[in-house]
Amino acid sequence: MRLNQFAITPTTLETEVRELKRIHFIDDQTSQLPPLAALIVLLDQSFPEAQSAATKRNRRAGLMATTTLTVADLEAPATITPTIFANLYLQLLGFEPGEQFDLADPYAINHLVNLPRFTHDLTTIDLIHGWYQLLVTHTVMGQTYLDDLTSRGYFEPLVHDPTTPRPLFFNGKAQPVYDVTTLIREAVYVESPQDSDSDGQRDLLKVEITRPGETAAGIKVPVLYTASPYNQGTNDAAGDRLMHDVNVPLTEKRPTSGISETSSSTTPLPAARTITAPEEPANETLGNGFEYSLNDYFLARGFAVVYAAGIGTKDSDGLRTTGDPQETISTVAVIQWLTGTLPAFTDRQANHPTRAFWSTGNVAMTGRSYLGTLATAAATTGIDGLKTIISEAAISSWYDYYRENGLVVAPGGFPGEDTDVLALETFSRQQRAGEAHKIQEKWRTQLNRLTHDQDRETGNYNAFWDARNYRQNVAHIKADIVLVHGLNDWNVKPRQVERLWQALRDVPVTKKLILHQGPHIYINNFRSLDFTDMMNLWLSYKLYDVDNDADQLLPPVLIQDNAKPETWHPQTDWAAPETPLQTWYGQNGLLTQQAPTHATESRFNDQLSTQTFAHYIHNLSQWAHDLMTPTITPLTGHRLLLQSAPLNAAITMDGVPQLTVTVASTQPIGLLSARLVDYGLFKRLGRLPATLAGQAMDLGFHYRKEVLRDYQLAPTASPYQLISLGHLNLQNRQAPDVVQPIVPGQKMTVQLALQPTHYVLPAGHQLGLILYATDFEMTIRGNQPITYTIDMATTRLDLPILTK
Amino acid sequence: MRLNQFAITPTTLETEVRELKRIHFIDDQTSQLPPLAALIVLLDQSFPEAQSAATKRNRRAGLMATTTLTVADLEAPATITPTIFANLYLQLLGFEPGEQFDLADPYAINHLVNLPRFTHDLTTIDLIHGWYQLLVTHTVMGQTYLDDLTSRGYFEPLVHDPTTPRPLFFNGKAQPVYDVTTLIREAVYVESPQDSDSDGQRDLLKVEITRPGETAAGIKVPVLYTASPYNQGTNDAAGDRLMHDVNVPLTEKRPTSGISETSSSTTPLPAARTITAPEEPANETLGNGFEYSLNDYFLARGFAVVYAAGIGTKDSDGLRTTGDPQETISTVAVIQWLTGTLPAFTDRQANHPTRAFWSTGNVAMTGRSYLGTLATAAATTGIDGLKTIISEAAISSWYDYYRENGLVVAPGGFPGEDTDVLALETFSRQQRAGEAHKIQEKWRTQLNRLTHDQDRETGNYNAFWDARNYRQNVAHIKADIVLVHGLNDWNVKPRQVERLWQALRDVPVTKKLILHQGPHIYINNFRSLDFTDMMNLWLSYKLYDVDNDADQLLPPVLIQDNAKPETWHPQTDWAAPETPLQTWYGQNGLLTQQAPTHATESRFNDQLSTQTFAHYIHNLSQWAHDLMTPTITPLTGHRLLLQSAPLNAAITMDGVPQLTVTVASTQPIGLLSARLVDYGLFKRLGRLPATLAGQAMDLGFHYRKEVLRDYQLAPTASPYQLISLGHLNLQNRQAPDVVQPIVPGQKMTVQLALQPTHYVLPAGHQLGLILYATDFEMTIRGNQPITYTIDMATTRLDLPILTK
Repeated sequence: MRLNQFAITPTTLETEVRELKRIHFIDDQTSQLPPLAALIVLLDQSFPEAQSAATKRNRRAGLMATTTLTVADLEAPATITPTIFANLYLQLLGFEPGEQFDLADPYAINHLVNLPRFTHDLTTIDLIHGWYQLLVTHTVMGQTYLDDLTSRGYFEPLVHDPTTPRPLFFNGKAQPVYDVTTLIREAVYVESPQDSDSDGQRDLLKVEITRPGETAAGIKVPVLYTASPYNQGTNDAAGDRLMHDVNVPLTEKRPTSGISETSSSTTPLPAARTITAPEEPANETLGNGFEYSLNDYFLARGFAVVYAAGIGTKDSDGLRTTGDPQETISTVAVIQWLTGTLPAFTDRQANHPTRAFWSTGNVAMTGRSYLGTLATAAATTGIDGLKTIISEAAISSWYDYYRENGLVVAPGGFPGEDTDVLALETFSRQQRAGEAHKIQEKWRTQLNRLTHDQDRETGNYNAFWDARNYRQNVAHIKADIVLVHGLNDWNVKPRQVERLWQALRDVPVTKKLILHQGPHIYINNFRSLDFTDMMNLWLSYKLYDVDNDADQLLPPVLIQDNAKPETWHPQTDWAAPETPLQTWYGQNGLLTQQAPTHATESRFNDQLSTQTFAHYIHNLSQWAHDLMTPTITPLTGHRLLLQSAPLNAAITMDGVPQLTVTVASTQPIGLLSARLVDYGLFKRLGRLPATLAGQAMDLGFHYRKEVLRDYQLAPTASPYQLISLGHLNLQNRQAPDVVQPIVPGQKMTVQLALQPTHYVLPAGHQLGLILYATDFEMTIRGNQPITYTIDMATTRLDLPILTK
Repeated sequence: MRLNQFAITPTTLETEVRELKRIHFIDDQTSQLPPLAALIVLLDQSFPEAQSAATKRNRRAGLMATTTLTVADLEAPATITPTIFANLYLQLLGFEPGEQFDLADPYAINHLVNLPRFTHDLTTIDLIHGWYQLLVTHTVMGQTYLDDLTSRGYFEPLVHDPTTPRPLFFNGKAQPVYDVTTLIREAVYVESPQDSDSDGQRDLLKVEITRPGETAAGIKVPVLYTASPYNQGTNDAAGDRLMHDVNVPLTEKRPTSGISETSSSTTPLPAARTITAPEEPANETLGNGFEYSLNDYFLARGFAVVYAAGIGTKDSDGLRTTGDPQETISTVAVIQWLTGTLPAFTDRQANHPTRAFWSTGNVAMTGRSYLGTLATAAATTGIDGLKTIISEAAISSWYDYYRENGLVVAPGGFPGEDTDVLALETFSRQQRAGEAHKIQEKWRTQLNRLTHDQDRETGNYNAFWDARNYRQNVAHIKADIVLVHGLNDWNVKPRQVERLWQALRDVPVTKKLILHQGPHIYINNFRSLDFTDMMNLWLSYKLYDVDNDADQLLPPVLIQDNAKPETWHPQTDWAAPETPLQTWYGQNGLLTQQAPTHATESRFNDQLSTQTFAHYIHNLSQWAHDLMTPTITPLTGHRLLLQSAPLNAAITMDGVPQLTVTVASTQPIGLLSARLVDYGLFKRLGRLPATLAGQAMDLGFHYRKEVLRDYQLAPTASPYQLISLGHLNLQNRQAPDVVQPIVPGQKMTVQLALQPTHYVLPAGHQLGLILYATDFEMTIRGNQPITYTIDMATTRLDLPILTK
């Protein structure tokens, strides 16, 4: 078990003493005590549930100081040796003597956890320093010891003491001195400068607020704002019915070049409502809603949390548009209300305006997937007040979500989904039947427009997609940015974050990037990473202006190792343009030097028997297995599988693998897919983090709980792992918005950028490259009788390789 | 979607009006209003989050009354037709017009949900009656509408009103009028009349209490008590290391007959501690602990919840014993403190006694698996104060958990586990290192004693197991009983509940049985069953003496259908002795009439190639697949697979399938395993309930949330499903405690009772019987060269079949 922490702020002893006093952990007398007496004071504070002297003593008797003595056995003037200190420190963090460390040699595990080293018997001041480090160090249950103490009631006296300073920071991070039993929950309706349902009135958008009860007494707090189109419910059954059939043929496209201009009919924006009635406080309360644990954590620590689902969702006006500028306007309108530049009303009658009087106007956006996408969208407007976004697994261009290089390519796990399906799924406005009745005609028109404009017929990049490409507005960004993405996220694929990361290079904001080995998941409950603390450091810095050096302390890039569990590598960059390329040639497998053989050709045919085709449709993982298994499978002859010799030394890919292929199709149509695969019988990380403990972390005191998870090595070895992939319509070999004809039998040289990666391919493993056509997991499946001929002499793979 | 409810109490209109007034839903004037005005009053109460007239009106505008009009469009003196009523009713429950019902014909779905039928335009009194039914009916999110209103704040005014009667019942069930933000959490140490660690002092046992804050003001409440040895932590790594090797040969056993008497050295019980200091209130508080949602639900409704982990757990004295009478004493001691017959102390120094002054002395025990087992154990003592147990997936005899008919047979999923492993895993006392140090010698001795006495060498039923068979004490039971078990629970197998159910027949207590299609799971978050309401009805009746007729209203037996989703059948009994048997003969497959053929023999050999054996050890599901697949597999020749012809009509098995086999072994050892299998390509229920919605149910108001789950049909058809199974050591063919020799080659007639079941085998399906030896999932795996010869003429299966 390795507890990696990146959010511990280096401090001076003076600061440590001051901060310990601030949270009442020590007082002015403590440093005057002899070491053993001071130790007992510190231990007593470390068991807040023990209210009596007897129970405090019992807890001390439960702690081994040496291999034979408990703390209760120590008698003055006992010295506190480094070993005694480390033994207590580790036990308090939950490490078990005999099981996880040796009482005779506790420092043997100091590479697994932040453990201050002493070379002499500890003075009282040493003890105080050691205890400060204890408080900021993670326990084996995934929280700092101070957060663990919180869940055991440590902060209760401070929470209920009106003289407690609020906010209160410790080691640069906001602490839970707000009363979570008195949170105020309320809804308001922001008037957004748009009329997306063309009813002649500006759209009113429901905003759900949870704020510390202390704000009622005049305290102002910054805001974590999550824009979630899912938060008011989803229309799953209707969305499923609208799913597009992906078992359709690839068809020949008419040559085109570039995006054609569309005459967008801009209807004038209606005037804002005239406000005549006096301002009133919000009066609609909130019931049970879906909440995110990262947000919940901050509610106890002096932040408000705001959710809004946007246009076309329940209790809001407007129509769903799936990522267009209208949706961005609706996302940003909430920030404008929080900063006082747009009005909101107490209800949808819109008589009484209501202000966010409790907001400091400093806003961060949080969320994953569509939620993180809208955070990115908002940032690209440069809106005032949005200080930072923590954007996880987010889309930066919707074309890259539903299309790829002129092909309809589904997000992994969602074949047949498209912008119209997502719009319908999130159109929760219709869950109020009266609204559904009122709006149904306009909604049908809107849905048809999405279906038409997304243009599944060609898969080309067009004006519709161009309007949904946030990367074009990156230069407007003023908010500092934290990006989080899974390197195995085949739903929102790594290209989304990579292209944004590249585009941000020249933008003068601070940006941080965390790449984990997960698919489309949250990481704030990982044991091996102090993600929550990192975000606390960051948000205390960005929203409360705490001088904690977060921008310097947090690594620019942090990448989870794909081969070693519980290992995170700080880096200065990812997918840097200057990373040297290593070229692999597709001859006799994969070689790093071009072999002096004659040109050879290889062929594969895309069409399967009806029976095999039907089987794979319902057994996608079997298809993937058969595709990537190098021995003979039903897909032999339907793919080209190249393997390198076992590597002499590990290589670390970092960036975008670039594939160059000379290919001919027997028809005037064609597609090319490619997978990069790690071959080697090896215990790999599991596909998903394992649950280590349920209800492990309380985010406050008897408040919200979070499960503890982390990646573990799979119990058995597996033969391969997917590294990256890519797809291309051969008609779009020049660009996604440029269509060229294909002459049957005539060779074309195409370049295909695979999904970006960071991957350690260990020594002894083989690099694999698979060329194929239909990707059952992602592309349309025409099962057409097309034979592809590959010129092996010119097939090459350029891999960005980090040198140590 | 079908919302089955069994806990709706039939009421009179008079009662409905009285109860609606009691919860302030209507007042004395409401029944005097014209129908439309009354409807608006009722609707306004149904949106507690809407505090303003404008928002209330907005909510009404969101509800369609007819296919064209919203409620807001209705104008006095509009009549409220049955259709209007049903449309509103269904919408409030979350059914979507157009999607889940037709506004023109809402009554078409009244078989899916409790929906009062009216044949005339509704009077105001009709409306009041209808709304009462609405409040007790489940929404599509798995709670009553009244519980849904709770999570939206309905009860907040009553919670904070000191004049609110507490407890408060509605439709016979306790309601959430207790303030969950002021719950009191504390620990005490009960002095148990035992000295399981032989230190000369009675064991002190930590008890963790959560009780409504209102009890501080003198209100007394009954108690839900969960005895959970896991609740203070587990030693998973140490337990894993102690796991026994199951890849060991079956060995010949010396003939024995019956249990030999053991001279149990009864050390005298030390005297109770002398109490000299005055009584004090509890002073140790609680941090984050593992809590169960069924218990949490009742905390808001006027019950206290108590957890205790028992002897040998963290902060308690004693040693773990895995289910023996010492553990039962420790379980019951907590009840004795709650009823005032045993002392507890504020801390482990045991100076100050402390009383459960807030307890009415009425106790129910809850919990699943080991937790439910201890509830059963406690009930068999006949202890005063224990009014009922809700025992889920519980063990009634530990022999049936770790052994079967003279064989070591593991709980499914835990090969190699035994009583010693479980004792070590739950010995959380050692998680206080000081305690581990103090007790380590005694603990090692105790663990060795368990390892010896459990006797994996023979697998026989002996005095050790006899002391862990709670069914012997069933006659002492005074508590009424609710039993819940999964018919596909191969961990704690269905025999555990069936033998207890049979033993309870003559015991004069009320007993209820719920059998679901799950494995080893909780069912209180199922959408298709109002389990929580049933338990509320039951506990209100048993612990608060509410005259709600729960004993009559709840069906004696309730069984989830294995073929139709969301279907629960009330029955009068299960596995009744008088159920007629249908005999199947093992000739030419399975026949219901003995064929007039000559005697035939069939053979199978148990030994696999080393490679196949090694593969199956790490791929148990592959082994199970190969065993049950009727075509040729690597196990062909290592099993005997018999199939009936497709059934002409469905049959319903209900009880214990009895197998009779004449068998010979080529060695003086041998084991026989059997599986009963349903063959038929069919969309079956999934193995686990699907998650329908996360954070769906709030158990109070901004309190604890629960996910919504239910069984759904698998998306694809599967070829077979396991119905039942059994295992037997041929040396124990007479009894688990009687060992006989086996003469190689000589036939023996053995009877094997398979696990009890309730299973609908649909028409067209085939019944399958598989005879084999080593069960890779459960038995030891000797991989020995034993050939078994079966006499087919005398092989028969007696199935209890329900006749309609």
